[in-house]
This record gives sequence, structure tokens and C-alpha cells, in this order.
Amino acid sequence: MRNLKLTLAYDGTRLVGWQRQAEGVSVQGLLEDALAEFEGSRVGVHGAGRTDAGVHALGQVASVTVTFSHEPSTLRRALNAQLPEEVRVVAIEDVAPDFHARFSARSKTYRYRIRNTPIADPFDRFFAWHVPEPLDVSAMRHAAEAIVGTHDFVAFQSTGSRTSSTTRTMTRSEWRDTSGVLAYEIAGNGFLRHMVRAVVGTLVEVGRGWRQPESMAALVEGRSRADAGATAPAHGLFLVEVDYHL
Amino acid sequence: MRNLKLTLAYDGTRLVGWQRQAEGVSVQGLLEDALAEFEGSRVGVHGAGRTDAGVHALGQVASVTVTFSHEPSTLRRALNAQLPEEVRVVAIEDVAPDFHARFSARSKTYRYRIRNTPIADPFDRFFAWHVPEPLDVSAMRHAAEAIVGTHDFVAFQSTGSRTSSTTRTMTRSEWRDTSGVLAYEIAGNGFLRHMVRAVVGTLVEVGRGWRQPESMAALVEGRSRADAGATAPAHGLFLVEVDYHL
Repeated sequence: MRNLKLTLAYDGTRLVGWQRQAEGVSVQGLLEDALAEFEGSRVGVHGAGRTDAGVHALGQVASVTVTFSHEPSTLRRALNAQLPEEVRVVAIEDVAPDFHARFSARSKTYRYRIRNTPIADPFDRFFAWHVPEPLDVSAMRHAAEAIVGTHDFVAFQSTGSRTSSTTRTMTRSEWRDTSGVLAYEIAGNGFLRHMVRAVVGTLVEVGRGWRQPESMAALVEGRSRADAGATAPAHGLFLVEVDYHL
Repeated sequence: MRNLKLTLAYDGTRLVGWQRQAEGVSVQGLLEDALAEFEGSRVGVHGAGRTDAGVHALGQVASVTVTFSHEPSTLRRALNAQLPEEVRVVAIEDVAPDFHARFSARSKTYRYRIRNTPIADPFDRFFAWHVPEPLDVSAMRHAAEAIVGTHDFVAFQSTGSRTSSTTRTMTRSEWRDTSGVLAYEIAGNGFLRHMVRAVVGTLVEVGRGWRQPESMAALVEGRSRADAGATAPAHGLFLVEVDYHL
């Protein structure tokens, strides 16, 4: 028995997301189907983060237990030859038997990209949320600071989600501003369903002047979902990396 | 009567190119159909460069004669609301009656992007040619220098093309190398059909070691098409800008 760690990049535009669904193309489904051919039987692939339809990944991590003995580099080439071009296996390595892509993860980093120019960039239309109105980036930066630390993020969770605890610890929450693109980077030990998109939607409402930057601190102390802002669209979100050694 | 100059950006992935065709979506067709609604009758839109299917534009220029009196900024917003997201009108201005997007152009700049990493970037798959093998960039730079100046580029023209003269003057021909992406920039007073892609295909053959960098100088002195390299794929090519004031 071998335990493999796969690092993946994918353009989520035409995918139904990470998780295998009854209909549509998922990253998990593509990998399980491709790996089953090497294994000769079904395999179960675990992902670090369950990205939704339209969400992208630069460094998603997956783990899978197999019995075949192909070299990692050979397997990587073979998988990339078989997978559609929107999904690439960036790296494969043998890892200890107790490694699990999801449960062993210590920290995940997400990036959310906003194209903040009057006219949209046609090359960025699947990879950034286009917000044509001017945004107060200084207010958004101020509000983003309140996210860092250990908080109850229940206000930023999709309604209907069931999780035992809604408390998470964020180690980074900041905006970068580069030639028309505002990129929000957030890192933490775990994320609730749709949390990054709800945080971004709320921060953009701060940037539009609809809410005060100071209101963010109250939101991360267990307010209800109705108190936070709208959920930003999926196509601006990227799972950047998953960290296992902190 | 008014003469308008339009500056356009488009993702050519799903387009049949600039020119209106019997089948498929063209930039010219989209613009003519949208402008006809303002004009109340058919209009003819002229483009500076006839980009092929799959070729992109950051600064294509078009001209059109109309009689309606909408403000340029109003017209720009209305056109962008009507056009598909892959085509954006970046700017519109009133110009002198004798301005013609194609015949008034003094210089055009194209960029050709190559993703030169072992594993393709899924986000760049429609916007760069993926060449996984290592390339000798120094040899490609040396060979590219021979392009600058006034030469007979018939070796880099599509077979079957008919042009009165195949002599053109290039003012720039250089490679930039940035984190896995090789970008070739070429500027000149005119380009033969498929010329940039044939030049890039030949320069890549130099980079692979299949031909000597010194052989480029002979190719631009009227050799036949068979002497040059293969045509690089369309999706790495961008029309960057068109210059009217040199």
C-alpha cells in the first residue's frame, strides 16, 4: 500500500467543483477515474478543500491510497496526458500512511480577485469579479484587519450549513492592489462553506460605502448570516495553497 | 457624417476572427450588427488588422462612418452592454473624415506568448503556446535581431497569399522572459498573412537547436516558404496596439 500526495492546479470555469456530482465534470471524479485505470479497481481521492463550481485552484492538494508501483514522475506525466487541459497535476510524492489531504492540513490560503476598472478585461472575465464602481480600498483594508485572529465566523457561513463549530483562526487577511486588480488574500486553519466569498462580499460593501469598516469587528463575534454582506461570485476565488508543516 | 475610431480588446478563443464569415461569430460582425441598431441601416466597420480565429487583441483599432449623434462615452457603454463579454470597446473617439483604421496605420505591434514550462498552466491554455521542452533563449534572441529592418518576408507568408509586395519594415523584434513565459514582441509597418506565427515557429526551431541562429538572416532575403519553420498556433498571438502617429 502506498499513500500519494497530489498537488493540482485547475481552471474551475467548466467544472462542477472539486466534489464528484451526479452530473457534470468534477476534479475528484476526473482523478478517481484516471487513477482507477492504474489501480485496476476504484480508488477514493480526498481533497484538502471542496472548491465549488467555478472556483479555481493553483495549489489544491489531494491524497489517495494505491497499490500500483509507478514512479511519481511517470504517473504525473501519464495523468496529465489523460486529464483535460483545465486540470494539471503539478506534483506527486509518496507520503506517510497517516497523511490525509484534508485532516492533516494546518492552513489554507485563498485569493479572491476583483477587476476594479470601469471596463472589464475580456481575458479576466472567468478569473475575477468585475466591479466597475470605484472602491475605497483604504476602508476595505481597515475592515479586513478585523478578520485576523480566532473568531466565530457564523455570519459568513452559507445558511443551511451544519458544522459543529463555527470558530476558526485566520492568520492573514489583506488586500493587494495592482494595476486595476484588487486581490484579497486570506489564510487560516479552516473555512466555513462560502466563507471567503461572504467575507469578500461584505468587504466590497465597505468599499462601496454601504457599511462602516468598524462594523466588521462586530460581525466576526457570532452575528447572524443576515448581518453580513452578499456572497461574492465564485469565479473570482482561487485556492492558492495548503500548508501541512507549520 | 461622423467618422469614429474604436479601440477594442477581445479574447479570440471562441471567435472566427476579426472578419465577418458565413458561419461563426466575428468581431467585425458583432460590431456591424450592434452599430446598425444605432444607425438604423447597415454600416461597414474597418479593422486595422485581420486577426485570425483564436488570435486575441489588446488594442485592435476599427473605424466606421455613421450619422447618429450619440456621445462617444454613451455609445461605448451601450455597445459594451450589447456585445458578448469576450469583446470590449475600450475607447471611442471622433476622428477626421480621412482616418481609416487600416490605411492610416503607421505601425502595428504583436505579441506572441509561449509557456515554456514542463507542465502547462491551465489558466494560460488559450493564451499561450505550451512548449514543454527547454529552449535556447539566447539563440532565439540572436536570431530575432535579423528580423529588424526592411526585408522581403515572403518566406514567412502563408502559401496561396497574393500580395503585390512582400517587403516590410520591422522596427522591433525581441524576446522577453518572465517566470516561465517567453513573449516575443514584433512591431512593423505591415505584416503578411500568418507572418508573425511563421516567424515565431521558425525562432522556436532555432530555440530547439534544429536550425542555426545565423540562418535567420538568409530567410528574410526572399527565401521560399518551405525554407522557414512551421506556423505557431493562433492562440498565443495578441494584436497589442496600432500606431497612427509616428
